Amino acid sequence: MERKKAIVLLSGGLDSAVAMWLAKSQGYEVYALSFSYGQRHSIELEKAKTLVESAKISGHRIVDINMGQWGGSSLTDMSMNVEEGDIHKKEIPQTYVPARNLVFLSVAASMGEAIEAYDIFIGVSEVDYSGYVDCRQSFIDSMESTINMGTVAAVEEGKKFKIHAPFVYKTKVDEIIMGMDLGVDFANTWSCYKGEGTPCGVCDSCKLRAEAFRKAGYSDPAI
Amino acid sequence: MERKKAIVLLSGGLDSAVAMWLAKSQGYEVYALSFSYGQRHSIELEKAKTLVESAKISGHRIVDINMGQWGGSSLTDMSMNVEEGDIHKKEIPQTYVPARNLVFLSVAASMGEAIEAYDIFIGVSEVDYSGYVDCRQSFIDSMESTINMGTVAAVEEGKKFKIHAPFVYKTKVDEIIMGMDLGVDFANTWSCYKGEGTPCGVCDSCKLRAEAFRKAGYSDPAI
Repeated sequence: MERKKAIVLLSGGLDSAVAMWLAKSQGYEVYALSFSYGQRHSIELEKAKTLVESAKISGHRIVDINMGQWGGSSLTDMSMNVEEGDIHKKEIPQTYVPARNLVFLSVAASMGEAIEAYDIFIGVSEVDYSGYVDCRQSFIDSMESTINMGTVAAVEEGKKFKIHAPFVYKTKVDEIIMGMDLGVDFANTWSCYKGEGTPCGVCDSCKLRAEAFRKAGYSDPAI
Repeated sequence: MERKKAIVLLSGGLDSAVAMWLAKSQGYEVYALSFSYGQRHSIELEKAKTLVESAKISGHRIVDINMGQWGGSSLTDMSMNVEEGDIHKKEIPQTYVPARNLVFLSVAASMGEAIEAYDIFIGVSEVDYSGYVDCRQSFIDSMESTINMGTVAAVEEGKKFKIHAPFVYKTKVDEIIMGMDLGVDFANTWSCYKGEGTPCGVCDSCKLRAEAFRKAGYSDPAI
């Protein structure tokens, strides 16, 4: 029997790496999709390539789309500084990229329709939520429904898309424990927002990661 | 009072040109958004630039995103020929680009959130429907709802996006008559799928356009 294809949105970060290994463990023929979107931390993309090699999956596509051109986020706007993280505050962080997951999932649907991959994996979590509304299950559900109304495969051929967000109600701690079982190559995942040679240790993302590894009871193989 | 901003998806074709003039006539500060997505008829983009000048609007952004890289359409896949059009048949035409309007509207939402433009105009019509499921009002409604769940502006600040599809229940004939009243620069709109120096006259899009101008009682200023 031919295996079902899945597209995994792969940033090169921890969450998407675990999602990729998970999709593979579930028997999918996995295609990774990454974006060069003007992010400051483009070292992520180098890590994504390495992760694809470690995971031995079927393919990897990096799509260029410069969302930095209209600014609105310190991740893409080079004139803003990345703020030091306070992981307990409730405001929307400056690192929010407008409608990022909306764009990424739309492009995944376009690619999915073309290659007949109707399962899309995304490593979002609303538990580790730091103001990113596009990481919530309610958004994912709405997006899935929209994709299924806007693609010929779904409307005319009954090939419904399914967006898998396996960590949406999980914490990073849960993901790390699961990832260790799955053999995720954590050493080649990248979380730091700054994107220089070694993780800065002070941004939101570095702090969340360090705290999660500590709570999971592992040392971080990337450090 | 500051004028409301709108983003108009501008392909350089007839429908989006009328949409742009319409948005301007409704008092919006208009920003056009075009895509270089690997389309065969990239002459459209040159026409889009000319239309932006004719309409004297506030800005124009052309976003590069190569949806041709995964194929699936004769508009982006250079190894396929554009079929000669039969405008009365019901099948999905080969010129369908997977999830194109999904991607375009997502990017418009990203740009819109960044520049605070919450009104998005798109010139789709389900009357002139030739198998494009992403041109239906039901899809537009679902997309609007998804955008309003996936952007901080909408969720946290109550700035709801509105997708305007003013021609969704109109014919090309209606659009041409409206466009003539609005002073649309039809001479610089481009419809032919082939994208060579002069319209081919035989593709789906050329046939629809010719029939529409004839029924509207105008001669086509682009020919």
